[in-house]
Amino acid sequence: MTAIQRNIEHASSQYSSTFTKGSLALPPAKKYLVLTCMDARIDPAAAFGIELGDAHVIRNAGASASDALRSIIISQQLLGTHEIVLVKHTGCGMLTFQNEDAYKLVAENLGSEAEEELRAKKLDFLPFSDLEKAVRDDVAFLRGNKLIPHEVPLSGWVYEVETGKTRRVV
Amino acid sequence: MTAIQRNIEHASSQYSSTFTKGSLALPPAKKYLVLTCMDARIDPAAAFGIELGDAHVIRNAGASASDALRSIIISQQLLGTHEIVLVKHTGCGMLTFQNEDAYKLVAENLGSEAEEELRAKKLDFLPFSDLEKAVRDDVAFLRGNKLIPHEVPLSGWVYEVETGKTRRVV
Repeated sequence: MTAIQRNIEHASSQYSSTFTKGSLALPPAKKYLVLTCMDARIDPAAAFGIELGDAHVIRNAGASASDALRSIIISQQLLGTHEIVLVKHTGCGMLTFQNEDAYKLVAENLGSEAEEELRAKKLDFLPFSDLEKAVRDDVAFLRGNKLIPHEVPLSGWVYEVETGKTRRVV
Repeated sequence: MTAIQRNIEHASSQYSSTFTKGSLALPPAKKYLVLTCMDARIDPAAAFGIELGDAHVIRNAGASASDALRSIIISQQLLGTHEIVLVKHTGCGMLTFQNEDAYKLVAENLGSEAEEELRAKKLDFLPFSDLEKAVRDDVAFLRGNKLIPHEVPLSGWVYEVETGKTRRVV
């Protein structure tokens, strides 16, 4: 067992020993979903005020709306959420590279077979170079998407990893 | 402004007023990533013992490894994580429907144009019918993937929404 796996077992026994929320319903009580980045410096529950059971939380590299589309449709069409909150953040790793850099790293670290697989899949890592523009672009992508009901409230925010503040962009 | 948006502004001013973690590094300090479901009843930081700054947290509908592949590669190749922890959970929405049910709901709720778009994209919602098998299958998918280094420690778990416990499957 690794130290990380031992840590999960320890956390589980601590968390479950005082757990009282075992009867929450499957659909999010407040009918919204938050899409944010996988970044280690973000604690969505604390920073965005999400109580257990209230909202779906989708996280991927860069809080990409297109990458999250499958999850968003399931959240809305099968589990009854409505409003969408999108939060990207300062200091995001997606601001630091381009697709070709990622392809080169894969080739160096994993070999040419892995690189060929990436090229065959045409995998787009979805990096971006302007944080606030990326927030606006993703909100526009959702607003214009036939698979998202057009009356859904949509907002786009930036979380500041330096200050712990979340500020609205759109 | 919606009630949800007001709640974020309120949470932001509370959280930032006592925030002291503004100097954490971009790469996760403990070099691991957790992949879990977007389900509203999961608080990964508390339930799995993740300190701010320690781990990437990827969340999507069902904790799907294939859907998370872009984020996992970025986490490992660009941001230096190594170990992968995958956690699905009891009572998951992905156990409750099949692709055709989702296609029908989209057609009913969003119209035939939206349904055609889904069919054109061949979008797979990735539902599953056996929870522990789905954990084992996703761990096997990662173990066999050329884009994941073969020496990476991988573990698969089930979080119990009824008890708050996380137990290892593989």
